[in-house]
Amino acid sequence: MALVVIGGVAAGLSAAARARRIDSRLEIVVLERGPAISYAACGLPYFVEGRVREVEELIAYTPERFRQERKIDVRTGARVTAISHPRREVVLESGAKVPYEKLIVATGARGGIPDLPGAQLPNVFTLQTLDAAARMRRFLRERKPRRAVVVGAGYIGVEVADALRRNGLRVTILERSAHALLRDDEGFTAAVRRQLERHGVELRTGAAVAAIEPDGVAGVPSDMVVLAAGFRPNVEIAAAAGIELGASGAIRTDDRMETNLRGVFAAGDCAEVTHLVTGRPTWIPLGTTANKAGRVAGACAAGARERFPGVVGTSIVSVFGMGFATTGFSVAQARAEGFSPVVARIEANSRPRYYQGVKTMVELVADRTTRRLVGGSVVGEDGAAGRINVIATALHARMRVDEFEQLDLAYSPPFSPVWDPILIAAQQLMKELG
Amino acid sequence: MALVVIGGVAAGLSAAARARRIDSRLEIVVLERGPAISYAACGLPYFVEGRVREVEELIAYTPERFRQERKIDVRTGARVTAISHPRREVVLESGAKVPYEKLIVATGARGGIPDLPGAQLPNVFTLQTLDAAARMRRFLRERKPRRAVVVGAGYIGVEVADALRRNGLRVTILERSAHALLRDDEGFTAAVRRQLERHGVELRTGAAVAAIEPDGVAGVPSDMVVLAAGFRPNVEIAAAAGIELGASGAIRTDDRMETNLRGVFAAGDCAEVTHLVTGRPTWIPLGTTANKAGRVAGACAAGARERFPGVVGTSIVSVFGMGFATTGFSVAQARAEGFSPVVARIEANSRPRYYQGVKTMVELVADRTTRRLVGGSVVGEDGAAGRINVIATALHARMRVDEFEQLDLAYSPPFSPVWDPILIAAQQLMKELG
Repeated sequence: MALVVIGGVAAGLSAAARARRIDSRLEIVVLERGPAISYAACGLPYFVEGRVREVEELIAYTPERFRQERKIDVRTGARVTAISHPRREVVLESGAKVPYEKLIVATGARGGIPDLPGAQLPNVFTLQTLDAAARMRRFLRERKPRRAVVVGAGYIGVEVADALRRNGLRVTILERSAHALLRDDEGFTAAVRRQLERHGVELRTGAAVAAIEPDGVAGVPSDMVVLAAGFRPNVEIAAAAGIELGASGAIRTDDRMETNLRGVFAAGDCAEVTHLVTGRPTWIPLGTTANKAGRVAGACAAGARERFPGVVGTSIVSVFGMGFATTGFSVAQARAEGFSPVVARIEANSRPRYYQGVKTMVELVADRTTRRLVGGSVVGEDGAAGRINVIATALHARMRVDEFEQLDLAYSPPFSPVWDPILIAAQQLMKELG
Repeated sequence: MALVVIGGVAAGLSAAARARRIDSRLEIVVLERGPAISYAACGLPYFVEGRVREVEELIAYTPERFRQERKIDVRTGARVTAISHPRREVVLESGAKVPYEKLIVATGARGGIPDLPGAQLPNVFTLQTLDAAARMRRFLRERKPRRAVVVGAGYIGVEVADALRRNGLRVTILERSAHALLRDDEGFTAAVRRQLERHGVELRTGAAVAAIEPDGVAGVPSDMVVLAAGFRPNVEIAAAAGIELGASGAIRTDDRMETNLRGVFAAGDCAEVTHLVTGRPTWIPLGTTANKAGRVAGACAAGARERFPGVVGTSIVSVFGMGFATTGFSVAQARAEGFSPVVARIEANSRPRYYQGVKTMVELVADRTTRRLVGGSVVGEDGAAGRINVIATALHARMRVDEFEQLDLAYSPPFSPVWDPILIAAQQLMKELG
């Protein structure tokens, strides 16, 4: 009897590796439907860009290495079609059955809009696997397309737009919603649009796509189309096996990453986690969470007692060298979650002017009743990641604004002004809170 | 009757400006002994370097602007020689007396070793005022010195060494203690030394200086000497007036920045604050603390109820482009403070290798009993400030290592690896804690 892990990328491999550490004698089988494991999906845009030369640079481990070094039985090309929990086995497409004692579902998510008319045209791409990225890169090299449409202004959509533009293409992003980078916030979306436009990429929000034509989308001429929308968790096999889904549509788990079926765990882009600002389940598919939650799932499946407390929803995307970072909730999101949001938005230098500081936008959102921070965003070319991470850490600690305002942050002119922009925003927020 | 502030740089001006905001009608007098106010003392090394061209770039406000915009009576060249609290007045060198109702002592600190034989030689410098920096810059331009000795490997000593080296000088730093940048930690000092040596600056620790000769110090030939040691708080006038000092020698205050004399506040480099990791008073003279504590002193002196909770001892220095950042305590410091320190030291990439990550050293120190973080350091050319600030925020929040390990930090290849170095250090520390 063994621990079986379905999925061999972020969550699945983190789980398998962690389980091995906990129990050196456990039989561990990883079933990956694709040809490769352990690849950096988040690096694919940079392979399209050309900054990453060889797709192999994105692969951290080969199945062989996992087998040899960790005694984990990694099987690629192993597509699971069903889970039978009463029999404690998973069924492969080949018909073979793999018995398990403990199971970890790490089936990930998928993007693209396969039902969209035209989605199967040869110049239409997604960017979720190494193969897909290699196909896109080959198309760029061989066909030398001049215009591209990217459908979706989420993280991948914006990163691909950046990568294609750097390859000389004219790029238009079509986004169905009113906002970019999944942040329901007008100012933030306006900042993304400004930066895209400054580099020659057009962003059209509120732009629904009904079909892809061979020579364009929604009236925008294009030689190629990237579908970076329609992300949803891969939960069909799990649901068919009686594994409960949450309101988000992803697999519901407890803080040990266990599902409603005893001994069956789930982690990564297919699973919900707790949002620490609300205490409620959320589905935020990101590589960091997949790795962390996968680790806990692996530990618990191997018999350890660990827990994954949850996330605060932190992310960052580089758009032509400028960091767009968010954590927690925007004002609109905070209101939708039942908070009474109060917001401060400021612009300040990343460093003293005499040390070449550049403009940085900071937004902080607090709840009026508790005066706790509930979210924030940072936009800038210098230090955005570090600044959002401080806000994220404050969200983890459930900090009030008055506490945040007094943070003892590192100061020296090459790194920040004496009043860091995030502290200036906190001072402003204290005024707004009254 | 008025609020009188002694000192017109960081703490003093923050206090005065904040008091004005709280009470628009209060009479406020700032007494500054020097010719300028509100200058960025931390920018002086960059003026010596030449990156900052004009000393005026370092001045945020002129006395005139403060007078006009904030109705604050700023008097430069006003050297206070005594405080008479029974009479509620301060006495100036000129003999003039300035009455006060509330008083804020922001007299700062001083460096240099005036009693050292040779300290008055014309090629011996300190770097605490605009005038001192201008004198050094002039000396560099006119005398074209080829060798320099810097006495003291604290922040200013190391920054000046960097600045002088960039001007082509051969530089030797002589430090009396065994460690650099005030961090009692062998590994950290070794990293500072490596970086200095890589750029042609020699660091000699355990090097006591008994005298300065016209052509050298302690056997090291030099055409100029910078004294960047012997820092201590300017407390003589306060002490003579009956203001209590703490064990550090700086002025003792409560969390409203009030001294033992009712109505007399102190803030900045002359005053103690609470160290939030120990809960005990500490003296860590830094510009950030001066500004924050000054603000609270000003608010309380003007009748508001605010408090300054304290610091965690965060700092960062750039040494030839590499950030050396610390917060809280090193192992040795933690032990001296009564903790049972457990440490993890790791080296990891600042970003994925495929996105040009560079080596980053992280050290995390926790207390074995409570499993709380009590300190850390980060050394690297990419993202050191942001990373130390996350650790600092965790110290404010009194986070345990297991909580820290799960922080939801921003990830994207241009900014960090999926496991940020500080999280890798936390995982390592969990193992050490067992």
